Amino acid sequence: MRSREAILNAARELLLGSGPTAVTHAQVAERAGVGRATVYRHWPQTEPLLLEAMATVPMPFLDKPTAPTQDWLRRELTAIASQLELDDVRAVSTTLANAALWDETMDARRARFAGILTDRLAAALDDAQARGEIVLTLPSREAAAMAIGPMYYRSTIERAPIDSTLIDAAMAALGTWSET
Amino acid sequence: MRSREAILNAARELLLGSGPTAVTHAQVAERAGVGRATVYRHWPQTEPLLLEAMATVPMPFLDKPTAPTQDWLRRELTAIASQLELDDVRAVSTTLANAALWDETMDARRARFAGILTDRLAAALDDAQARGEIVLTLPSREAAAMAIGPMYYRSTIERAPIDSTLIDAAMAALGTWSET
Repeated sequence: MRSREAILNAARELLLGSGPTAVTHAQVAERAGVGRATVYRHWPQTEPLLLEAMATVPMPFLDKPTAPTQDWLRRELTAIASQLELDDVRAVSTTLANAALWDETMDARRARFAGILTDRLAAALDDAQARGEIVLTLPSREAAAMAIGPMYYRSTIERAPIDSTLIDAAMAALGTWSET
Repeated sequence: MRSREAILNAARELLLGSGPTAVTHAQVAERAGVGRATVYRHWPQTEPLLLEAMATVPMPFLDKPTAPTQDWLRRELTAIASQLELDDVRAVSTTLANAALWDETMDARRARFAGILTDRLAAALDDAQARGEIVLTLPSREAAAMAIGPMYYRSTIERAPIDSTLIDAAMAALGTWSET
């Protein structure tokens, strides 16, 4: 079990330091100080390893809103979009959505992941509305589906680039932003 | 190979006649006139069988728009939403998105599926705009991601019901509908 922990720690460090594409069998093996065969034995494929490493690191998106909310949100959605363009993130997110249908552990991860995004965006938008930055056109807890859903569909179903038009349209769909 | 074809035909008939939940090993076996073990041998799980059957039937959604476009589109999106609430459709769509990353046949199906939805919605909205029914706020070929993406995210990532609020918000995000 010690090599399993070392591998998972190495995967987490690589994920935090260099992003999901760095979580390869070779790099994980080198950093964990184990043979590549050992990594393959515990995780024949990298997606489940990446998923498990992701489950142990803080979700980086939509955290700590700054004013003006409109600028902050555009930056955050653009960051999510660029992550969704990475094959590894596409693989992890579609594996999670698929495996969650049959596997309770995966479903718990899916729920935690989705819940954090929903909660953070709802809180940021409620605050923004209280400050007069936006008049919401839909309940704040529906905002995550409206803001992230189009990018997720574009990336995983249409498999096409997420352009700023789509991000702007999603932001406009949340409500009427006041001019600043 | 004859039993394989008989099974696939049975799956297609069940899909068209009674919807995706009818495509079970037992019902497929009975309709195909083969033993249940034969169905399990060709398709140990029902999702790939359902996917293959789906690939052979015409895509039912967003087909043949009728005026007023706004009412037609709300009906179509509501129909897609109720399909996305079915476990089988969730399974098939997330399996497709996931498997398409590694499997060319699956990726071709994904592309065909997504392309039909994008094309049909773009054509219907371009026509509606030409008739003065809507002023689009985003390019018509971006409309599918904007209209279906939030429902897809709600259903597969948030795993929560798709309410009419989300459908209305997605429709409003496409453009300004003229009062009728």
